[in-house]
Amino acid sequence: MKATIERATLLKSLSHVQSVVERRNTIPILSNVLIEASADGSIRLMATDLDLQIVESVSAQVDQPGATTISAHTLFDIARKLPEGSQVLLQAADGKMLVQAGRARFNLSTLPRDDFPMIAEGDLPTQFELPAETLKQIIDKTRFAISTEETRYYLNGIYFHVSDEGQPVLKAAATDGHRLARVTVSRPDGAEGMPGIIIPRKCIGELRKLLDEVEGSVAISLSATKIRFGLGSAILTSKLIDGTFPDYSRVIPTGNDKLLKIDPRSFEEGVDRVATIATDKTRAVKMGLDRDRITLSVTSPENGTAAEEVPGDYSGDGFDIGFNARYLLDILGQVDGDLVELHLADAAAPTLIRENDNSPALYVLMPMRV
Amino acid sequence: MKATIERATLLKSLSHVQSVVERRNTIPILSNVLIEASADGSIRLMATDLDLQIVESVSAQVDQPGATTISAHTLFDIARKLPEGSQVLLQAADGKMLVQAGRARFNLSTLPRDDFPMIAEGDLPTQFELPAETLKQIIDKTRFAISTEETRYYLNGIYFHVSDEGQPVLKAAATDGHRLARVTVSRPDGAEGMPGIIIPRKCIGELRKLLDEVEGSVAISLSATKIRFGLGSAILTSKLIDGTFPDYSRVIPTGNDKLLKIDPRSFEEGVDRVATIATDKTRAVKMGLDRDRITLSVTSPENGTAAEEVPGDYSGDGFDIGFNARYLLDILGQVDGDLVELHLADAAAPTLIRENDNSPALYVLMPMRV
Repeated sequence: MKATIERATLLKSLSHVQSVVERRNTIPILSNVLIEASADGSIRLMATDLDLQIVESVSAQVDQPGATTISAHTLFDIARKLPEGSQVLLQAADGKMLVQAGRARFNLSTLPRDDFPMIAEGDLPTQFELPAETLKQIIDKTRFAISTEETRYYLNGIYFHVSDEGQPVLKAAATDGHRLARVTVSRPDGAEGMPGIIIPRKCIGELRKLLDEVEGSVAISLSATKIRFGLGSAILTSKLIDGTFPDYSRVIPTGNDKLLKIDPRSFEEGVDRVATIATDKTRAVKMGLDRDRITLSVTSPENGTAAEEVPGDYSGDGFDIGFNARYLLDILGQVDGDLVELHLADAAAPTLIRENDNSPALYVLMPMRV
Repeated sequence: MKATIERATLLKSLSHVQSVVERRNTIPILSNVLIEASADGSIRLMATDLDLQIVESVSAQVDQPGATTISAHTLFDIARKLPEGSQVLLQAADGKMLVQAGRARFNLSTLPRDDFPMIAEGDLPTQFELPAETLKQIIDKTRFAISTEETRYYLNGIYFHVSDEGQPVLKAAATDGHRLARVTVSRPDGAEGMPGIIIPRKCIGELRKLLDEVEGSVAISLSATKIRFGLGSAILTSKLIDGTFPDYSRVIPTGNDKLLKIDPRSFEEGVDRVATIATDKTRAVKMGLDRDRITLSVTSPENGTAAEEVPGDYSGDGFDIGFNARYLLDILGQVDGDLVELHLADAAAPTLIRENDNSPALYVLMPMRV
């Protein structure tokens, strides 16, 4: 192969694909990016970790079609350091690839393109589109609740499923057993009958990065085992988590009768401040609820005590409840409006948090003993 | 004590003093900052690691003079999170200190001020001033060469000494055995007869940070064992390294007869680029010197080869020499002009690098076998 590509184009595309490549690989070719130059004047760059695959097509001047694979991180580092505005010659021959720009020449080791593993997509019968903005919101409002416990592999992703509740909806949920985040949007055309699927954390992370550069809609195709996202010039394909997501609807409380309405910004800042002195891992914050007055407090055997009063709209019976400060801050960080509702029952019961009963996002938080 | 201070003033001052406090301390009070409120309307904040001490004075409204010590990092974290523009009440009583601003109240554990260790400065007979800008330049152009090998403790700092070479000069030098950096400035009034001193790395680091906020001159007082820097409202006092700095002048080559003049920017970029593929720790770069043409190259058994030609002004005999890319980049990063001179002898001899024979900074770099 022999092709010439603008350094900026190469760099941008490599920044996407190298991100899928793990830093350490036991299988050498997984460190590589597949570069394929076609006679139609395009170069395809592809990277994979066997579970997640990215393919990006960019335009280039192709003098001789062909393909090879070279270290993704090395080529990315080289592209970063090449002079701005330069044209990069990529020429593969005899098990080496020449990368040349300006006065710099690199002769890099390659591995055969035929050894490069591809994810067999198979049939992807469910096909629909989602606005990039909607997909961003779904991810941002749920991903923080994804479990990192590898033994509970079925919680290591976001669960997407459709249901009909008067109107057809698409729901996305994530939980780690301590908190649950769920977003509901109206079901896009084509998603009817789709299987419930769990999209793994790494795919979510790469997808979210790519969404920042996408306008318009994302084309989604999926089966029960694979999903493909069409994002402009990039295609992201991932295996799905082979497991059963728990019936999370059972943990969403419906009878919590104590309602607190509070400004999420002063609530967030207050929690963040009093948590400063918490030294243990859990960083428990106590909320003392009184008529229209919430007292946030932390006691640390080492550092002392911290307390802050935050005004809130509350008319239930007074009581104390504890939460993990980090979890509370994760949720409040996703509330955009100027009011958030906490639906409480007692100090031991799960608390429901949402902006209001029309908001697409809903959170459930387990309390801590304080 | 009882005093009120602006949050911004407290935060800025704490950002300076907490930086001296080590994250882990076996002696608990070393984690603390001493806060001393005086009737004259000032608060002194002091922190120490027993070798380095910082004292900063800020103005405050003092209702009741007094002093105590509390965790420096905790108070800094609290100050960061307090509302912008707020007034902070500091009130110590009964082994606790109340920190209050807005609706937030912290009641923090204290340790007695009398237990707080102070560095006894003793007599500091040598006293002079240096422009902050000059001191910054001295540090920036030498600190990268400070050794991190703890067994060679006498190299873990910058060596300052005066000498007379036609005119009286102050010299600062650092070396780790592989490279040497030296800056020469004219001797300030009052520095005559000063002992040769080694200022430890940590003091240099804190001093450099403080210099960014200082205009004008820095007042320096020193003995053979201690040094004090007066930097506006802050005073930094450090013990000096008790050791003998080697006679470094012997390693500065005087007879190197092969002169290369080269643009430091294209040289730097070229070295950085070819070093991309170097995988070993040393990152050796080979320089092939030919008449007016320098070829930089790296060979990596794993990645392949890289080469770049850089134009240079060279008329000596052709030969190859290798350098540690990191060390070369450290030096070139300190060259501001548009030409740098490399005075070479052969592939095994130390190379002298400087802008020209009038430049205050001079570097010596040991070659590597390539």
